[in-house]
Amino acid sequence: MHVGELLGVAVLGAGHMGADHIRRLDRVVSGARVAAVADPDPARAKEAAAGIDGVAVHAEAEAALDAPGVDAVLIASPGPAHEEALLAAFARGLPVLCEKPMVPESAGALRVVEAEARLGRRLAQVGFMRRYDAEYRQLKSVLDSGRLGRPLMLHCVHRNVSSPPGFTSAMLVNSSVSHEIDAARWLLGQELTAVTVLRPRSSGNAPEGLLDPQFVLFETAGGALVDVEVFVNCGFGYQVRCEAVCEAGSARIGEGHTMVVTSDGGAREEVPQDYLVRFADAYDREVQAWVDATRQGRVTGPSAWDGYAASAVAEAGVRALVSGGRVTVELAARPELYADDGV
Amino acid sequence: MHVGELLGVAVLGAGHMGADHIRRLDRVVSGARVAAVADPDPARAKEAAAGIDGVAVHAEAEAALDAPGVDAVLIASPGPAHEEALLAAFARGLPVLCEKPMVPESAGALRVVEAEARLGRRLAQVGFMRRYDAEYRQLKSVLDSGRLGRPLMLHCVHRNVSSPPGFTSAMLVNSSVSHEIDAARWLLGQELTAVTVLRPRSSGNAPEGLLDPQFVLFETAGGALVDVEVFVNCGFGYQVRCEAVCEAGSARIGEGHTMVVTSDGGAREEVPQDYLVRFADAYDREVQAWVDATRQGRVTGPSAWDGYAASAVAEAGVRALVSGGRVTVELAARPELYADDGV
Amino acid sequence: MHVGELLGVAVLGAGHMGADHIRRLDRVVSGARVAAVADPDPARAKEAAAGIDGVAVHAEAEAALDAPGVDAVLIASPGPAHEEALLAAFARGLPVLCEKPMVPESAGALRVVEAEARLGRRLAQVGFMRRYDAEYRQLKSVLDSGRLGRPLMLHCVHRNVSSPPGFTSAMLVNSSVSHEIDAARWLLGQELTAVTVLRPRSSGNAPEGLLDPQFVLFETAGGALVDVEVFVNCGFGYQVRCEAVCEAGSARIGEGHTMVVTSDGGAREEVPQDYLVRFADAYDREVQAWVDATRQGRVTGPSAWDGYAASAVAEAGVRALVSGGRVTVELAARPELYADDGV
Amino acid sequence: MHVGELLGVAVLGAGHMGADHIRRLDRVVSGARVAAVADPDPARAKEAAAGIDGVAVHAEAEAALDAPGVDAVLIASPGPAHEEALLAAFARGLPVLCEKPMVPESAGALRVVEAEARLGRRLAQVGFMRRYDAEYRQLKSVLDSGRLGRPLMLHCVHRNVSSPPGFTSAMLVNSSVSHEIDAARWLLGQELTAVTVLRPRSSGNAPEGLLDPQFVLFETAGGALVDVEVFVNCGFGYQVRCEAVCEAGSARIGEGHTMVVTSDGGAREEVPQDYLVRFADAYDREVQAWVDATRQGRVTGPSAWDGYAASAVAEAGVRALVSGGRVTVELAARPELYADDGV
Repeated sequence: MHVGELLGVAVLGAGHMGADHIRRLDRVVSGARVAAVADPDPARAKEAAAGIDGVAVHAEAEAALDAPGVDAVLIASPGPAHEEALLAAFARGLPVLCEKPMVPESAGALRVVEAEARLGRRLAQVGFMRRYDAEYRQLKSVLDSGRLGRPLMLHCVHRNVSSPPGFTSAMLVNSSVSHEIDAARWLLGQELTAVTVLRPRSSGNAPEGLLDPQFVLFETAGGALVDVEVFVNCGFGYQVRCEAVCEAGSARIGEGHTMVVTSDGGAREEVPQDYLVRFADAYDREVQAWVDATRQGRVTGPSAWDGYAASAVAEAGVRALVSGGRVTVELAARPELYADDGV
Repeated sequence: MHVGELLGVAVLGAGHMGADHIRRLDRVVSGARVAAVADPDPARAKEAAAGIDGVAVHAEAEAALDAPGVDAVLIASPGPAHEEALLAAFARGLPVLCEKPMVPESAGALRVVEAEARLGRRLAQVGFMRRYDAEYRQLKSVLDSGRLGRPLMLHCVHRNVSSPPGFTSAMLVNSSVSHEIDAARWLLGQELTAVTVLRPRSSGNAPEGLLDPQFVLFETAGGALVDVEVFVNCGFGYQVRCEAVCEAGSARIGEGHTMVVTSDGGAREEVPQDYLVRFADAYDREVQAWVDATRQGRVTGPSAWDGYAASAVAEAGVRALVSGGRVTVELAARPELYADDGV
Repeated sequence: MHVGELLGVAVLGAGHMGADHIRRLDRVVSGARVAAVADPDPARAKEAAAGIDGVAVHAEAEAALDAPGVDAVLIASPGPAHEEALLAAFARGLPVLCEKPMVPESAGALRVVEAEARLGRRLAQVGFMRRYDAEYRQLKSVLDSGRLGRPLMLHCVHRNVSSPPGFTSAMLVNSSVSHEIDAARWLLGQELTAVTVLRPRSSGNAPEGLLDPQFVLFETAGGALVDVEVFVNCGFGYQVRCEAVCEAGSARIGEGHTMVVTSDGGAREEVPQDYLVRFADAYDREVQAWVDATRQGRVTGPSAWDGYAASAVAEAGVRALVSGGRVTVELAARPELYADDGV
Repeated sequence: MHVGELLGVAVLGAGHMGADHIRRLDRVVSGARVAAVADPDPARAKEAAAGIDGVAVHAEAEAALDAPGVDAVLIASPGPAHEEALLAAFARGLPVLCEKPMVPESAGALRVVEAEARLGRRLAQVGFMRRYDAEYRQLKSVLDSGRLGRPLMLHCVHRNVSSPPGFTSAMLVNSSVSHEIDAARWLLGQELTAVTVLRPRSSGNAPEGLLDPQFVLFETAGGALVDVEVFVNCGFGYQVRCEAVCEAGSARIGEGHTMVVTSDGGAREEVPQDYLVRFADAYDREVQAWVDATRQGRVTGPSAWDGYAASAVAEAGVRALVSGGRVTVELAARPELYADDGV
């Protein structure tokens, strides 16, 4: 593409998340345009693309990739469709931003890693948007500065008001906690090596049979300990907190506030109810950063390796949930292509 | 302009603020492009426009307005140049976003109001960016909801680390406090009717002769009281706080925090050092909202009347500072064109 | 009294505050016993003294002072009775802790000061209990340390849920704000020299005719400015806040919290509803400190001069409320006996 | 003793904690006097008793119990001396407040429980002072109210600036965490049934060989999960935090603050450096409550059973630390005498 031209993006998937990304590319992000939209449900694709100039709408992902003016791909289709879409983008040499999980099964995730390694150049970025959140970046910056000494523990909390229909006990680990898996790897710069899942008694507000809350413990290659409370039917708000306990101090995020209203005998701060509210800025920054880098022919952000590692750790977590014991994480050898990454 | 086309903006002034707006239009905001830049210093204009495709660079503001592809104007030149630039934009029917103060002297501000009223349609928006800050919007929303009853008092704090060279005692009122003047009018939906300026003993850290801090009291048409501590050499941070005390509760902004670092015997939250840090998001949202509205042929946001009222109140404030007494604010009759505004 | 003996205290007044002090001396404070209780209503006196060993109950204050085993006096009768009680205690050489206001009229307060000065030794302490509150002591300690530079402004807030029947507009100044008057004198170590009272529109929740809230401005001998929001029908809690703005930093108290409960979409801290809750510890510490000092034959704490100065400033405040203008405070010459006090 | 008489207390142990309790009984608490002091080091006993009227000083604990005027006993000697002292008090029918650990070995603690059960009446209270801390009581009160639903998890943090010489890895569990053991039993009203101790990498600031921090996990009879970060060389402050996560909300203590000082680019709250600062009020309230109840012939507060249960859980914790695995807690049958306690 020429300098000054807008980046033409094909968006695969026009569901909740895909429609939100289409709106973001069209109206929030600078330097990009939606060039194509694909969704198996043509009505949904058309609705998400409505009002956008010169956009091609397709039922098939590959058709969208081949539409005129497509310079890059944003994958927001359901997880099982990701592997094929990534490989199709690789085949065309198109840069990709792929929503998480990159590929749900670690075996498939590894195939994507190997495919990109064979290409010999990076095309994929995975949508771990917390890396673009202002608070997480502050935390990362303090840890990297070294002024608090080495990190020893991360205490994490991940709470949702309620879980969507069909949410399973395994999904607390491989969907909800996958964010903490990536955040811990990124913040600490270490791979996670083992996982244990504890099951406190379940809340009466959780659907019958759902193990909720769970308490997940990760060990890292450097000997740090990461604990995560995941509670997806907490009822009172969307809360994401993280405290890094280091040798010379601790740093906490996720308990900040803005407005305080005092009335009726109490001082009250609102808690966001939804991750799209809490992380709205992070999504905007993530996509803007991806567009900016892509227009300059660069790939930054979480890599396919990060997507693979998160899948592998999440799989070990689900085994730990089932077995009740400690499960070690076995990662494949890391291709040379990813040697310079942070983790 | 056609649907889908980018809004071509002429930016007048390529100083600190102008350069920041050029960067914003070019790289942050969606749906706009920098079509022209004007600055009396051609080197400065060129530097600010570097790397932008198809931008015209001029020494004269009017030449920039007449450059090809200009659909709208952003005025970021020094205050004394604003009146002429606004009238030139009106003459060409171009929508304008004008940095504050709209016009430093209220007489000139009134001429702008009258010119726009004669046009019979709104073209101007004034850059009171606090109206686009997330915290101020939360506060406005709580006040407008009525659930805290009627507002009775606003307690405001406006602190800067240090004042720039040449900053005068009058500028604490007509430059720093002008933000609180607009915010109070907007939050309360009432004109300010009188002003008194108290002078506590000056800080030893203020330059010789500068009355800093000052304590400014405004009365409103509805009987509310607004007090503002303005302290531009406070040394410790950039702080903007506002508490609205209402009949059934109070709401406070500006004391929020994000990350807490505990070390060395204390828990510490960082205080921003600069308004461009504190209000970075507000500037982005302001310009995005202006671009969005302008592309749809609408004018929203603070009007020329708001710019005039702020100038008139600030002038009364400077008289109050000099006299030591209470000074009433006299506003001209409000043209019909601005009848439906909030204040 | 002999070492190891309990201090026998005569308590004058067995109303709300007197009964609370009787309970405190009997059951909370170490080293004291209630030796006598006086109240014009004998039933009330008896009820307050019930269950206390060896206590004399009288209708007349002087009879209680003369009861066996009385070593000291605590005056908790209504303000108009204080002057006579103080003079009676002075006549008997008894140390006194006198609830505020020491004497409501400054003329009477001055007579007490002169009487004590004639005695040539200190017997009286006035019940400004905020000087014993942990937060106020922290604030005083930071200011006295000098590490924030000289204080320039105090921003104070004093809010009550609702005012008792019969509360007048003048009482917002001479009863509620009298606490801030003493606190400001003590924190700053300066006399207050002038006062202005502003009247924002009154809350719809205030009784008909009560000017509530008010905004009171004090100037100090050293050029500092003290502003006080007093709002006695705020409806939402008992709040006492104070921020000292200094040349190199600010220190705030009164916005602390202990437990945070997150539920129903918000994080909430309780606000105390009553000054007896907020300042319970301060009352305990005040009386304990008075008992400890008295047993050692010393008088510490706020003096009769402090009581007089508070009355004189409050009187000026009421004149300022009525006149709408600025009123200067005229103090009598300070007797030698009080020369070494902080203020 | 007669109504109105002071409770005569024999204090066993005149070290750091004993001397503090002697000062407290003599000068802070109402209704008690120090009647006797015992310490194997007579000079230390004399120094601690200096200036107290009519106090007997002995080297032998039993001699102090038999001194004239002794109505009750406060045991503040080293843990290994507690069992004998408790049994001696039981033999004399004297009420006892015993510092924690009641008896370090659970076998000895059980002998104390059995001896008191044989007596058939309660004489002992164990010094778990957190039950008297205002924040812990707020938390208990919210949990007991049921308005947040059933508790599912407790997240606890216990940090000290540095550990004293000779502090061992086991002492993190059986000394530091013993407070959380009692607090968890009391807050939840459930026995702890199993314990696991995780060992993150140790801080470089911990003495060679000390496993610090540790992360301790308790399971409860009702299925709740309790996690405790214990970090005794954290370097930055004394921090005790507790968050109870319930079905309908969470309640947190230990992150409160009082004064906020803003200077040098940050807003800072002080963190206490020492437990005697953080829990000063709790100690005062504990001893006052014990004196008040004892004077009325009642025994309240944590019982010998609570002391035994804490020892048994701590022993299991040390085994878990050594083994690296999960260890179940086996408690003896609970005597009828303790049937009505909360846990």
